[in-house]
Amino acid sequence: MSTTLLPVIQPDAAVCCTPLTSEAIDAERADDLAKKLKALADPTRLRLVSIVAASEGTEACVCDLIEPVGLSQPTVSHHLKILMDAGFLTRSKRGTWAYYKLVPGALGQLSQLLDVTASR
Amino acid sequence: MSTTLLPVIQPDAAVCCTPLTSEAIDAERADDLAKKLKALADPTRLRLVSIVAASEGTEACVCDLIEPVGLSQPTVSHHLKILMDAGFLTRSKRGTWAYYKLVPGALGQLSQLLDVTASR
Repeated sequence: MSTTLLPVIQPDAAVCCTPLTSEAIDAERADDLAKKLKALADPTRLRLVSIVAASEGTEACVCDLIEPVGLSQPTVSHHLKILMDAGFLTRSKRGTWAYYKLVPGALGQLSQLLDVTASR
Repeated sequence: MSTTLLPVIQPDAAVCCTPLTSEAIDAERADDLAKKLKALADPTRLRLVSIVAASEGTEACVCDLIEPVGLSQPTVSHHLKILMDAGFLTRSKRGTWAYYKLVPGALGQLSQLLDVTASR
């Protein structure tokens, strides 16, 4: 019976995160944020997230992700798994192919945390 | 002789960055962004940036950064150097102490790149 669950399913996660710059963050929050940033801090993973996010419905078939990044299918799948584990993508299988979809709000949360303009 | 340096000194870096999610980014931009995210993707460095950003004038003496993160001065200096090399902080010496200041726009650029709400 609590509205605190709502941000998880909101499309832009606009309500959950005090910007990193308005107050010093504690160790636990820093650990959590560092894990998310580490998952993104790789050129291939950034490109994969970007392709998925820019696709129709923010969803892309794995068959459309391999050629643009120029890596083998197992390597691409490895990177996609890291992005799923960090909560940026979800995966669903339809027919022969797996489809990867951007988790609504996942990037928006990070964006808001880093938004220096909101506080100074 | 290039205007590409300008965003670094802008207060909010509002003009430089197409969000990551509006179009697939190219390999060069992904490399650059990954380097910046890697520099931030560490719990201690996130706490240091956060303390500096939340300080008066977004500037803090190194003497006020050591105790909160509970690490030795050389270790803190090492982390601060990584943050400087990545363009998040600048350093100036006044008297006995070094002062670290948030680079205006550096976090805002990242925030804008990750801003999913701007495009979808």
